[in-house]
Amino acid sequence: MTDLKHRILSRVSADLSDIEIAISQNLSPHLDLVSEVARHILFSGGKRLRPLLMVLSARICGYQESDAVPFSAIFEYLHAATLLHDDLVDGATLRRGQKAAHHIWGNPTAVLVGDFLLARSLSLAAKTEQPRIISTIAGITETMSQGEIHQLQLKGNPTITEADYMEVIRRKTAVLFEGACRSGALLADASEEKVIALGRYGADLGLAFQMADDLLDYVSNTRVLGKTVGADLREGKLTLPVIYALQKTGKEKKDWILDMISRSDFSVQDFESLVKILHESGGIDYTKTMAKRYVESAKDSIGIFSLSPTRNLLMDIADYALSRKM
Amino acid sequence: MTDLKHRILSRVSADLSDIEIAISQNLSPHLDLVSEVARHILFSGGKRLRPLLMVLSARICGYQESDAVPFSAIFEYLHAATLLHDDLVDGATLRRGQKAAHHIWGNPTAVLVGDFLLARSLSLAAKTEQPRIISTIAGITETMSQGEIHQLQLKGNPTITEADYMEVIRRKTAVLFEGACRSGALLADASEEKVIALGRYGADLGLAFQMADDLLDYVSNTRVLGKTVGADLREGKLTLPVIYALQKTGKEKKDWILDMISRSDFSVQDFESLVKILHESGGIDYTKTMAKRYVESAKDSIGIFSLSPTRNLLMDIADYALSRKM
Repeated sequence: MTDLKHRILSRVSADLSDIEIAISQNLSPHLDLVSEVARHILFSGGKRLRPLLMVLSARICGYQESDAVPFSAIFEYLHAATLLHDDLVDGATLRRGQKAAHHIWGNPTAVLVGDFLLARSLSLAAKTEQPRIISTIAGITETMSQGEIHQLQLKGNPTITEADYMEVIRRKTAVLFEGACRSGALLADASEEKVIALGRYGADLGLAFQMADDLLDYVSNTRVLGKTVGADLREGKLTLPVIYALQKTGKEKKDWILDMISRSDFSVQDFESLVKILHESGGIDYTKTMAKRYVESAKDSIGIFSLSPTRNLLMDIADYALSRKM
Repeated sequence: MTDLKHRILSRVSADLSDIEIAISQNLSPHLDLVSEVARHILFSGGKRLRPLLMVLSARICGYQESDAVPFSAIFEYLHAATLLHDDLVDGATLRRGQKAAHHIWGNPTAVLVGDFLLARSLSLAAKTEQPRIISTIAGITETMSQGEIHQLQLKGNPTITEADYMEVIRRKTAVLFEGACRSGALLADASEEKVIALGRYGADLGLAFQMADDLLDYVSNTRVLGKTVGADLREGKLTLPVIYALQKTGKEKKDWILDMISRSDFSVQDFESLVKILHESGGIDYTKTMAKRYVESAKDSIGIFSLSPTRNLLMDIADYALSRKM
């Protein structure tokens, strides 16, 4: 465990225990099968980063009530719902080192339990009785589903631009981080300035987080990753390291990459050759640089808050986005 | 067109036009594909019964504002979202005489556009800024997804009871009718007595409606039905006419039915023999009788309202549930 990870975890262990209980207690399905499938995805080693961000965002705005934690489960349910549907959409076989739910229970059950978790998160949101929080949360799902569809449309398209990529990850990932932070601020009845600052912090952190995640597909291995290395590419998902390399590398290597990504059955050797090109062309470094830039921007946003342990923690969490897996 | 249908339509044509516009205008997706798929399912001959019930429920409670119509689109979006996911779950090929969306655009797109419509309905619900309406609508989705899962679990199970069947149709169908009527009353800020009465009207109407729909699978033909006759049975869905027949018919015929429903590739002749048994054993009549009973109960519930054109209309709509397809 890295020092940074250790430093973060030691300060949030009480919050994480509370969040764990809230996720379990607020599920309340009528059917055992729903419970079983939901628990498979909810309790398979998630980091609870999204609920944690909501709780810390409320806290940095001075919120003292204990209901931030139960409401924070909303963001883990939303996250789990999208994982269930996305793994099915992507035909993914592994999730966090375990069989993906649709592989165990079949597509119908994965679709319907995803729907249940989506609805459960919105029922919990309704309990806040705060229209702005409810709108934020309903808006997240609307945006995320469209981000996933946009990604689906771009699959295997080698002309995808950096702008396309940014738009997809903003919708499919950043919006949920943004919504968690924003909802925490709204729950605390914070000033508009603080609501906006925390929303920006979340959005930028989400972008950095997704970039770091996409990078892992090229610089990690299956055991650490909990899913097959090169899976993004096999699914036809072109992420920033590849997009940048296609733009910067010479015609010969570019043609080689294009040929490779047109086949989902490329060999391990081919994949290693690709990773080498991504390094040489600067695709890996560029992605790291951009992720760092968003982390800095996230940290800047919360500069408006006075110094406090919670502010330090949010700063550290931003830094940690770069050194995934947390 | 029957007299009753004609009498109803002549009184709601202005409302139906307004609802049609609201469904189109409140969709507002960012992506053309979302719009295309959503419109395929939304504008393929739906009866707009659920939005209409919300508008009429608000009206019978004295609501005069024009925003009942835009909000009523919520219930058509929810309905369309569940149709997209259910057709995929059931492997259905036809919907209202057209190819099912997942057959045209594939499962991934059908899942994600369903998610979008679900989220869109909750975003619209949030705009009411009324926590009880928002909770009602979030609760509908939670219940419906569980009703579908319950139905999935019971597929092909010949020991399904009438109570199981009632529980499934209450969750998967009646809850949406109930929620539409209840939300109309809540929007009108009606008394608790009226909210409950309209909720009951909707729930009972929904049950009758689903029973009549399930009956159609045995007493209609593919052209009228817009989907393959016998589709329920091919999907392993045992509905009330069959459940009742299995209970009442002799061992020989019961064994014959059990053998037939264990095969999804039964012949047209087999199906016709089954329909004959359903008639002889009283399964068809019993289902009609039960549906009628729920229609009467629905009408009783709104007896608390004083006589008005809207009350008459709601009474006629209840009667019409029995003479589907509307």
